[in-house]
Amino acid sequence: MKHNFGAGPGILPQEVLKQSAEAVINFNSTGLSILEISHRSKEFEAVLEEAISLVKELFELPEGYSVLFLQGGASTQFAMVPYNLLPEGGKAAYVESGVWANKALKEAKYFGEVAVIASSKEANFTYIPKDFEVPADATYLHLTSNNTIYGTQLQEFPKSPIPVVCDMSSDIFSRKINAADFSLIYAGAQKNMGPAGVTLVIVKDELLGKTGRQIPAMFNYQVQIDGNSLYNTPPVFAIYVSMLTLNWIKAKGGVEAIEKENIAKAKALYTEIDRNPLFKGVCAVEDRSNMNVCFVAQNPEHEKPFLKLCDEKGIVGIKGHRSVGGFRASIYNALPITSVHVLIEAMQEFAEKNK
Amino acid sequence: MKHNFGAGPGILPQEVLKQSAEAVINFNSTGLSILEISHRSKEFEAVLEEAISLVKELFELPEGYSVLFLQGGASTQFAMVPYNLLPEGGKAAYVESGVWANKALKEAKYFGEVAVIASSKEANFTYIPKDFEVPADATYLHLTSNNTIYGTQLQEFPKSPIPVVCDMSSDIFSRKINAADFSLIYAGAQKNMGPAGVTLVIVKDELLGKTGRQIPAMFNYQVQIDGNSLYNTPPVFAIYVSMLTLNWIKAKGGVEAIEKENIAKAKALYTEIDRNPLFKGVCAVEDRSNMNVCFVAQNPEHEKPFLKLCDEKGIVGIKGHRSVGGFRASIYNALPITSVHVLIEAMQEFAEKNK
Repeated sequence: MKHNFGAGPGILPQEVLKQSAEAVINFNSTGLSILEISHRSKEFEAVLEEAISLVKELFELPEGYSVLFLQGGASTQFAMVPYNLLPEGGKAAYVESGVWANKALKEAKYFGEVAVIASSKEANFTYIPKDFEVPADATYLHLTSNNTIYGTQLQEFPKSPIPVVCDMSSDIFSRKINAADFSLIYAGAQKNMGPAGVTLVIVKDELLGKTGRQIPAMFNYQVQIDGNSLYNTPPVFAIYVSMLTLNWIKAKGGVEAIEKENIAKAKALYTEIDRNPLFKGVCAVEDRSNMNVCFVAQNPEHEKPFLKLCDEKGIVGIKGHRSVGGFRASIYNALPITSVHVLIEAMQEFAEKNK
Repeated sequence: MKHNFGAGPGILPQEVLKQSAEAVINFNSTGLSILEISHRSKEFEAVLEEAISLVKELFELPEGYSVLFLQGGASTQFAMVPYNLLPEGGKAAYVESGVWANKALKEAKYFGEVAVIASSKEANFTYIPKDFEVPADATYLHLTSNNTIYGTQLQEFPKSPIPVVCDMSSDIFSRKINAADFSLIYAGAQKNMGPAGVTLVIVKDELLGKTGRQIPAMFNYQVQIDGNSLYNTPPVFAIYVSMLTLNWIKAKGGVEAIEKENIAKAKALYTEIDRNPLFKGVCAVEDRSNMNVCFVAQNPEHEKPFLKLCDEKGIVGIKGHRSVGGFRASIYNALPITSVHVLIEAMQEFAEKNK
């Protein structure tokens, strides 16, 4: 039994894995694999429709939004967002809360002016920048809701006089948000929603078609909307697994119920980090993420032996990102609280051995 | 037992499906699913390396080429090719041999001048345009090696004084080609190489970096080469299944052995189409595809009952594309010749009943 704390591609529910494996052999009793059925078949169209409708339901999405399942990851969205939203000579406002936010704003520079209205770069992104004014003359405000590498999370979304675009790759469907506050949400699936290879985009329809830009078909949200994510062959299997995962969230009681569990998991782990004399957290307490819990050993020499102990206990994916060091426990939706308890016990055992 | 003649996503080898299903539960005895392992893990890096090296081996690729596994399908390549190759004010030459070629050249128009140097559009793409001169002042020549919808295939590649770019989505690894004749090859995996969700790109390194264009990271071949297809999270599972499929091709004896089987399958089916008084082929005999065999009923009233008979015999995916009508039997690498025999017997039985 492994306890998968990997940052992404991350843990998926066991039931989803089981159903996915079955579908690779025989999908929905068609006698065919999900890997070899037509994306135009009624069976797959039903999968896609169910996935879209689950996104709408779980987000309580108001009218006027389109839900897309695209390829290329959030990194492709870094370019598609300004390509589709920013007119020539336009300006976009970015909050630089981590490396991914930084990458997003770099891509936007290919398409127009970028105003970095706040940044915590000088502190290696250990906190969420908060005191900033959103320029009313910018086309949109870009936020990153959770910073996977540093373990920080936007606890409160800033009020904005302009449309808000948010990269939610690492905390989508982990907590209740008010969808109407956002004009565009995107997320690579591989942390909380499904496997690598599909990207969710939720976009307010009225936002589009205003730049006058000529946009190649595959990079054009409107083309993808018109094709209902079937402009070309979509990533069939990744959408299928996402649909199963969304259904699993729904069966758990929806985002509200998941959020309660996530808070309990995070609270248990942060409590241990703060209590245990051998470890300490790395980022501002008020900005701590409920998805990626980053911490270090007080004594750097303890890092390797603690990783070894984790390995012995089946705890995997706990090594921190090279730019932060130490440990990162990603406690995504599908990670059971029992795995968090195993990690806490390992920390306690390690402290006992090393006191 | 189904006989999967679907045009794509198409049939995959049974062994590959079995191994893929196992990996969804427990990948390489890691105790983790292939869907929840890090793309930076040594296990996945080994998969990617093996996939790249199999492509090089099966293609007998000379030095100086990079092999990429990207997202977005061939449709994304329609835009990426000119984005990366065509300088401002440059010109590219396209052969319009089908709807996909037409889509490719439309995307190129966003980036420069497009010379359509030959087209069979006026004949609903029922033949491969052949007599054309390749303009020496164009940056590249774009070809489509196989036209899935119409069942035509380039039997001989034209000589070209300029770099040749080829969309091989529907016949890649189905026949021996001389890789050195091409500067860029791309293919959506979902016909002969793997599942939907990954695109193979083989590019001659010296072709790149000559346009002076500023290209967003995800659309920039050089960025993808520098990142070894890991600039961002790749479609892990789709690459894994492709690696297994490439290994299957190798174990069969490589492309040469596969080609012999493909020729035998195609020959058997075309012989029956030409012999059977109830059916006829739809495209020029000399351009017939060994991958997609398109035919119609001499009497249109026979279409529905023949489809019904096919259904009874477990033959699936045989309905022709709406722009051609009739039937399309896609006989990709993984389709066993026994399935072709089942189809031929159905045609004979149908002729017997309706004579």
